[in-house]
Amino acid sequence: MIVIMKPGAKDTDIQAICLRATEMGLSGHPCYGVEQSTISLIGNDRSVAPEDFSGLAGVERVVRVSTPYKLASRQSGLPSSAIKIAPGVVVGSGLTIIAGPCSVESREHILHTAQLVKANGAQMLRAGAFKPRTSPYQFRGLGEDGLDYLVEAGQATGLPVVTEVMSPRQVERVAQTANVLQIGTRNMQNYDLLLEVGRTDKPVLLKRGMSATIAELLLAAEYILSAGNPNVMLCERGIRTFEQHTRNTLDLSAVPALKSLTHLPVLVDPSHGTGRRELVLPMSRAAVACGADGLLVEVHPDPDRSVSDAQQAISPEMFAQLVRECHAIFGVLHPESARTSATV
Amino acid sequence: MIVIMKPGAKDTDIQAICLRATEMGLSGHPCYGVEQSTISLIGNDRSVAPEDFSGLAGVERVVRVSTPYKLASRQSGLPSSAIKIAPGVVVGSGLTIIAGPCSVESREHILHTAQLVKANGAQMLRAGAFKPRTSPYQFRGLGEDGLDYLVEAGQATGLPVVTEVMSPRQVERVAQTANVLQIGTRNMQNYDLLLEVGRTDKPVLLKRGMSATIAELLLAAEYILSAGNPNVMLCERGIRTFEQHTRNTLDLSAVPALKSLTHLPVLVDPSHGTGRRELVLPMSRAAVACGADGLLVEVHPDPDRSVSDAQQAISPEMFAQLVRECHAIFGVLHPESARTSATV
Amino acid sequence: MIVIMKPGAKDTDIQAICLRATEMGLSGHPCYGVEQSTISLIGNDRSVAPEDFSGLAGVERVVRVSTPYKLASRQSGLPSSAIKIAPGVVVGSGLTIIAGPCSVESREHILHTAQLVKANGAQMLRAGAFKPRTSPYQFRGLGEDGLDYLVEAGQATGLPVVTEVMSPRQVERVAQTANVLQIGTRNMQNYDLLLEVGRTDKPVLLKRGMSATIAELLLAAEYILSAGNPNVMLCERGIRTFEQHTRNTLDLSAVPALKSLTHLPVLVDPSHGTGRRELVLPMSRAAVACGADGLLVEVHPDPDRSVSDAQQAISPEMFAQLVRECHAIFGVLHPESARTSATV
Amino acid sequence: MIVIMKPGAKDTDIQAICLRATEMGLSGHPCYGVEQSTISLIGNDRSVAPEDFSGLAGVERVVRVSTPYKLASRQSGLPSSAIKIAPGVVVGSGLTIIAGPCSVESREHILHTAQLVKANGAQMLRAGAFKPRTSPYQFRGLGEDGLDYLVEAGQATGLPVVTEVMSPRQVERVAQTANVLQIGTRNMQNYDLLLEVGRTDKPVLLKRGMSATIAELLLAAEYILSAGNPNVMLCERGIRTFEQHTRNTLDLSAVPALKSLTHLPVLVDPSHGTGRRELVLPMSRAAVACGADGLLVEVHPDPDRSVSDAQQAISPEMFAQLVRECHAIFGVLHPESARTSATV
Repeated sequence: MIVIMKPGAKDTDIQAICLRATEMGLSGHPCYGVEQSTISLIGNDRSVAPEDFSGLAGVERVVRVSTPYKLASRQSGLPSSAIKIAPGVVVGSGLTIIAGPCSVESREHILHTAQLVKANGAQMLRAGAFKPRTSPYQFRGLGEDGLDYLVEAGQATGLPVVTEVMSPRQVERVAQTANVLQIGTRNMQNYDLLLEVGRTDKPVLLKRGMSATIAELLLAAEYILSAGNPNVMLCERGIRTFEQHTRNTLDLSAVPALKSLTHLPVLVDPSHGTGRRELVLPMSRAAVACGADGLLVEVHPDPDRSVSDAQQAISPEMFAQLVRECHAIFGVLHPESARTSATV
Repeated sequence: MIVIMKPGAKDTDIQAICLRATEMGLSGHPCYGVEQSTISLIGNDRSVAPEDFSGLAGVERVVRVSTPYKLASRQSGLPSSAIKIAPGVVVGSGLTIIAGPCSVESREHILHTAQLVKANGAQMLRAGAFKPRTSPYQFRGLGEDGLDYLVEAGQATGLPVVTEVMSPRQVERVAQTANVLQIGTRNMQNYDLLLEVGRTDKPVLLKRGMSATIAELLLAAEYILSAGNPNVMLCERGIRTFEQHTRNTLDLSAVPALKSLTHLPVLVDPSHGTGRRELVLPMSRAAVACGADGLLVEVHPDPDRSVSDAQQAISPEMFAQLVRECHAIFGVLHPESARTSATV
Repeated sequence: MIVIMKPGAKDTDIQAICLRATEMGLSGHPCYGVEQSTISLIGNDRSVAPEDFSGLAGVERVVRVSTPYKLASRQSGLPSSAIKIAPGVVVGSGLTIIAGPCSVESREHILHTAQLVKANGAQMLRAGAFKPRTSPYQFRGLGEDGLDYLVEAGQATGLPVVTEVMSPRQVERVAQTANVLQIGTRNMQNYDLLLEVGRTDKPVLLKRGMSATIAELLLAAEYILSAGNPNVMLCERGIRTFEQHTRNTLDLSAVPALKSLTHLPVLVDPSHGTGRRELVLPMSRAAVACGADGLLVEVHPDPDRSVSDAQQAISPEMFAQLVRECHAIFGVLHPESARTSATV
Repeated sequence: MIVIMKPGAKDTDIQAICLRATEMGLSGHPCYGVEQSTISLIGNDRSVAPEDFSGLAGVERVVRVSTPYKLASRQSGLPSSAIKIAPGVVVGSGLTIIAGPCSVESREHILHTAQLVKANGAQMLRAGAFKPRTSPYQFRGLGEDGLDYLVEAGQATGLPVVTEVMSPRQVERVAQTANVLQIGTRNMQNYDLLLEVGRTDKPVLLKRGMSATIAELLLAAEYILSAGNPNVMLCERGIRTFEQHTRNTLDLSAVPALKSLTHLPVLVDPSHGTGRRELVLPMSRAAVACGADGLLVEVHPDPDRSVSDAQQAISPEMFAQLVRECHAIFGVLHPESARTSATV
């Protein structure tokens, strides 16, 4: 059962509902939205009626939700979430294109790349400072220095920045300066990390685990939501299958499937999803065509010299074409947004 | 090595080349194109030079091809194939939308459905007369009667028809009246069947096996080509993965990957690819956006009453929207074709 | 619903039951066992009671079966099937080891290999005369000549032979001389072929499709059974997964799972299941330890020179060790059979 | 390149080698074995010869290793690792059977279960105090209380205990009292956690990620080894495939494959590997038959009442049979150990 609070409901109202839940043998998990908070009530709710909560102060309505994920579910009847990242940058409203190199390679490198992606139409900057690598002997990123360079590049260009956090112990430090915390595919079920970012109010970009089902991705999101943070964006980035031509199999069906199951925004990462430069552009178009709210694309000033993931990075020129074509397709699906995209 | 013949080369020229190949310890496999034939030369070709063949009568040029599939490979330098199905219906030129019910349910049913899909923009009619079913106790189609009804419906509407052949013994009979022979996912590596359709000159729609790699799909096509039939269309229809939300995982990355590896046209079946009605429309748009030459869609006058595959059949109204949106996206990618699609 | 006939029931009894089924709106599918026949009754059997059939001539009992496969199901209460291949060779009674080269390479080669595997403890000889190959340009076996050599080698050694049939058109010819018809992994859902071997009374070795579920394997077996042939042996041979270290992922859990779901014997092919010579022996032991009724192993006099599948063929010496160790493990699980295996 | 130190080499010798490596542009990663330490040297080692290190103090020999995992590789020529857990309990020497409930349910429950598994032949006790759960609303274990109860049960029975750590922040606390730290399947690539346990000298049981390749599992082990901890045991626990009859697909081929690639011990978890009680016993036998060093089995005094994973827990009676049969099979493969197993 989900309790949907009125806009502007007080914290004490939320506390009172959780207290009532406890008295009735349930546990209440509040998720503090900027405009509207929700509370999931967990336990044997067969003996509990919506009416037991609907009359309490601050409550707008109470909804039974049959899916195992509650706060993430569309069944709540909440409108699609729009996550405010920075002034003028809202994921879930229009098409959001996030671009940047796989990893921060140097201060100059990230400043230069930030300018290139900004000039070609990116709304946000991505790059890794802390890099998860399959081998302990591979380059693991510049760490805190890399983070500082990335944040500086974001400020220099006015682009909000998204970067990965790999450990609960990094969350506080990264959350101080980055705009969006990314949870990578290997950590989608790192529950301590999910709870830690859930205790912040930073937007979180949650990537699908490489062998996670759609339901498991939504339950991972629920970990973050139920810890209090409503600002979750999902990201399809390819799943692991028998096919080896591509690095992963980009499961684009997950986009419309997720959009029907949850109110959270859904992005697509065609770079990791395919692992091949020549497939990034067509799969970006396809992602937009099936309803993605945004893209996360690896762009490098000189792709063949990328320190990591060189095979999947695209050039600024290819990125410019990607932005143009994706906005054109978005415009076909959303004629009302045509003027906006026409200006790009 | 591939020998590409001049347009209009004589059969005796082709025979002479195969004879020369035999003399040199190779085997020659001619593929008889309407406009242009090609011959793949197989064997230890290290000791053979293109010059050994390039001077022979009727030869345009000789190309070394490094992929295991030869006649199907883009490395031949041949332009993208356009497969003529019927006057005005060419797969590989513009966007081709093929629609119809899963199976022919009755004479009236297929006539009615044919009219509906024709009216809503289909260029070809699909339906199963011989149905492969997982259980021997399921409905296996109307057989020869179903084929006759289907052909009648095609003639009544002017739509060419595509239908599945499941066994070498059916090929001759079906090829007499149907326009396109479909090889289903379970039979992608039924080599006797591939060779049998390869001995005809009928267009063949070859579906990817549910656990076939891209390379295996191309080698299955090569079976047909090397038996002499150049009219092969490939169809991505979803692969089998751990994800169970969808019936299969539609591997759309295969579309641009195949387009770069082969000159054969590539279609997409979003109906089997997802198994869910609500995903057919967005995934059709995505297929077109990433470069598919056409779509194969299950449409039923009353989807919930479909005798087979009811969950994935869409209504004529949804199909009309699909045609409209897919042509609009195709127009974005091919502005030169905009006028054509505008008339739809 | 399954009708289990008394041993020795007459054909006319079976026909009478099928007629009664038709009258009641059901269809009857008899499976003619050597000792005992069974009939599956398909249709809406809610309105039909076992009593409607249990009193008819020749009927032993009538059982409701809830699985989609009926004749293959353990729910029938039938004892585990023992398939008689030849005098003294019964699959499903003791441990049956089938060995031989991937393909018949020459008359001398198969005669020599047959002697080697016989001397080292094989009970049956396997080899391919008609070979399914991914590419049309690969060696596809010696065909009918290969079949003749194989049969000759079987007769010379007293080993029954098993060989693959790839097409319905080959069935009659192969069934004349081979002892067991093998259906390969690519043809597990080649329904016309399943029905064709189902119309014979030859033992059939049905390999699991590389992406077939356990339920689908049982339904493929049901195709053969429901066409009248009770002599079906199942064979786990590895499924296709993301793991590329092995050629396939040998799903040994399928062995005890199948043994609990069906009365049919279950064999394991560790050669295709792993694709690596060094894994064949340990996985053979594991197959026996989890309950397999037999093994299908690729043995070659000079494995590195095998014309096909060289990487997975084992030498006669390794095979001798395999036979010894597998019988020892079988003896642990079946102490009553210890004497038999001790004589090997 | 791997430097293998003499038994008893001094820490200062190891430091001197790492210093020399740094001078030559390499990085040295020492792994401190109880008897023998090894150091992996990473970097462009083409310009470096084994002789550059083989003469240094304390060095036994220097080996080039071509695999991406160095310290874990068999190419080092090191004998199979035997990990001492407690007096008389050594993983990698004989067959080690670890058993216990999925999670610690209460103090009484774990004490009782520990006695049952001890009485029936377990050498170690397993149970979860901190439980990774797909949903935030599922029971996540008793936490620190659970850990205390588990340790108490271990002491009461004399069984060393293994339990999962889910977060770097838990490692210190758990390492104080538990004997073995388990890394679960979802955390196999949680690199911060791997490094944290790598900095302890506690034995680590590293489970294969549910979609991890064999190479990735070995690289995850390399994270731990290269952080200094040599006491790593690998555990196959099933991979995610299309097959849904079993919870996972137990990839037993990984056992002999790993044994040939690494000197680390390899265990098998047939409980998670199958998810079905009736398959645990046959798959345990198969695991031993193909060379596993041990088993990790979920046993519950009253399986159907297990708070978590009830479907895969086995009863003490089934466990007793499992121990008996597995030791008998182990005895077949290791006749020299027959007497030991005979006493069980």
